[in-house]
Amino acid sequence: MKKAIMLISIGISMIGIATAQNETSKAKAGTQWLRHVVLFKFKDDAKPADIKLVEDGFRALATKINLIKKFEWGINNSPENLNQGLTHCFLVSFSSTKDRDDYLVHPDHKAFVELLKPFLDKATVVDYWVQE
Amino acid sequence: MKKAIMLISIGISMIGIATAQNETSKAKAGTQWLRHVVLFKFKDDAKPADIKLVEDGFRALATKINLIKKFEWGINNSPENLNQGLTHCFLVSFSSTKDRDDYLVHPDHKAFVELLKPFLDKATVVDYWVQE
Repeated sequence: MKKAIMLISIGISMIGIATAQNETSKAKAGTQWLRHVVLFKFKDDAKPADIKLVEDGFRALATKINLIKKFEWGINNSPENLNQGLTHCFLVSFSSTKDRDDYLVHPDHKAFVELLKPFLDKATVVDYWVQE
Repeated sequence: MKKAIMLISIGISMIGIATAQNETSKAKAGTQWLRHVVLFKFKDDAKPADIKLVEDGFRALATKINLIKKFEWGINNSPENLNQGLTHCFLVSFSSTKDRDDYLVHPDHKAFVELLKPFLDKATVVDYWVQE
């Protein structure tokens, strides 16, 4: 019986591990997400190395700023031609309005905006609480 | 020993259940996501009932069209004033380029676009494969 309890306990621990592996590192189960959708159009004279600097800079924010609970990004491949020149999308997820607001004034975020500015033609930003 | 194997087996089965519960209904574990980000600016004379029609119409697509593997949406609440008049974001996820392409020409999607047109000022659409 003790063996049985021990093995059920192993089973339950393993469920815990399985659940954790399906959550993004800093996210809790059942979190309501506040999405921060950031789209960039770069200047015509921005070089690939400049754009790489911005991509890496934004990715670095996600590791530096603990307020960011999920992060992903990608490069536009829509065939609809409705991207208004915007080529990059960064999708940042917060779990509260306060975290989003604190992120916006965070020194690391402000430094990133300064790094970005020389290469940026236009940014479009929409935030929303996730509905289904 | 048989009991031990049986209980480990229960543990593994339960991991399977836990994993399934953390995936969106139509999504497979380990799926690479192609995001389809759709932003709308409505005409100034669009009434709340018109906008509700569009919101409900888009949500209905997610249940009607099986190519859509994940769906969420929300209304802009960004304090940055960089939303370029865009108030609504719909985030649609596909698991292949073919599914995205088939969605774009799907009769239900085309019907939705016709429903939307009278109320739409501007759409911005960016698709991307998720990178981290």
